[in-house]
Amino acid sequence: MKWVEPIGCQVDLQNGLMQNSSGHYQKRLSDLAGLYADEDAYKALLRQIGNAVVYEVTEWRPPARSGDMIFGLTRMNPGRVGKEFFLTRGHIHAIADRPEVYYGQRGEGLMLMESPDGETRIIEIKPQTVCYVPPYWIHRSVNTGHDDLVMLFAYPSDAGQDYDIISRSGGMRKRVMADAQQGWALVDNPAWQPRSTEQVMQLLTEVM
Amino acid sequence: MKWVEPIGCQVDLQNGLMQNSSGHYQKRLSDLAGLYADEDAYKALLRQIGNAVVYEVTEWRPPARSGDMIFGLTRMNPGRVGKEFFLTRGHIHAIADRPEVYYGQRGEGLMLMESPDGETRIIEIKPQTVCYVPPYWIHRSVNTGHDDLVMLFAYPSDAGQDYDIISRSGGMRKRVMADAQQGWALVDNPAWQPRSTEQVMQLLTEVM
Repeated sequence: MKWVEPIGCQVDLQNGLMQNSSGHYQKRLSDLAGLYADEDAYKALLRQIGNAVVYEVTEWRPPARSGDMIFGLTRMNPGRVGKEFFLTRGHIHAIADRPEVYYGQRGEGLMLMESPDGETRIIEIKPQTVCYVPPYWIHRSVNTGHDDLVMLFAYPSDAGQDYDIISRSGGMRKRVMADAQQGWALVDNPAWQPRSTEQVMQLLTEVM
Repeated sequence: MKWVEPIGCQVDLQNGLMQNSSGHYQKRLSDLAGLYADEDAYKALLRQIGNAVVYEVTEWRPPARSGDMIFGLTRMNPGRVGKEFFLTRGHIHAIADRPEVYYGQRGEGLMLMESPDGETRIIEIKPQTVCYVPPYWIHRSVNTGHDDLVMLFAYPSDAGQDYDIISRSGGMRKRVMADAQQGWALVDNPAWQPRSTEQVMQLLTEVM
């Protein structure tokens, strides 16, 4: 019997990367067209820092197995597009009843979550905050601070990601914008389209 | 549809506990009879500090679902029984192909792992070390330092624990003992009995 070998991966909080990773990807501002509310501000920032890395992930994936787990580290720059804080593309799991656990390690931010039927939840994340994203919640992280937002994550290895669920509904229902008091506020996204009962039921039935 | 609610749980590195936990258990030295090699040293320490908490776990468990996850925090005192460092009882998952991810947050220790056919592996853990325990590995943590060993953990919610697999084979094959240089060394456990091919195959077939 050939057992999968244990591994230790050291997290470097300074550069926001995990050692011994099996994968590493970076998202530049130019990869994130259509995510932000203020298209003019996005284009202006693109001209300034379009090639800059906005967020990156180092991760370790085991050989595919239904009961196994993927883990890694996500690091996101601080910044805004207009009044909107930097954010990740966001996703629901392709097998929608799979959860995800995040753990804040540096910086300040939040997890923006949306249920298939349009409920919004926020968990604020600072160092040593565990954030549990339950089955079926669309989720994206937002850097509301002035430092890199660095979080550990772990999720079932068969979960997969459906990134298009957000664009199919015109974005998430809420956006996270800077307010006048140096903080953040949730703002309605007027382009958001609710999912039909059929679409919600399809997410549920695909995994049962 | 009633979705499971997201939750944020703050980890307190000073007291080694996770807030908003759904469960909390403590193991005292008196709960750990039979774990240590030196029975006389165990009895002597019992008379001194038998009622002291040696390790404790705060955890959060979702409603039972096959694809969900449990997470929490484990805190273990520093100390030794004779030359043997404090350790957890250890387990294999009842569904043996389920993995576990640990993340060092305070102190120094190691994960002692044993495959069903008797291979031993060690991952040393310090703050910011992720330790991946793959499917099928029996695992126990050992505090080799002078401070509390505090680790975050996450694993599939259907995994379960089989704690008796270790006692059935006379303990784990290796023990972690203080050496003459203020460090630790692996020492053979003469009471260890290998598992039969049938026992190994049973672990594999139960989950396939």
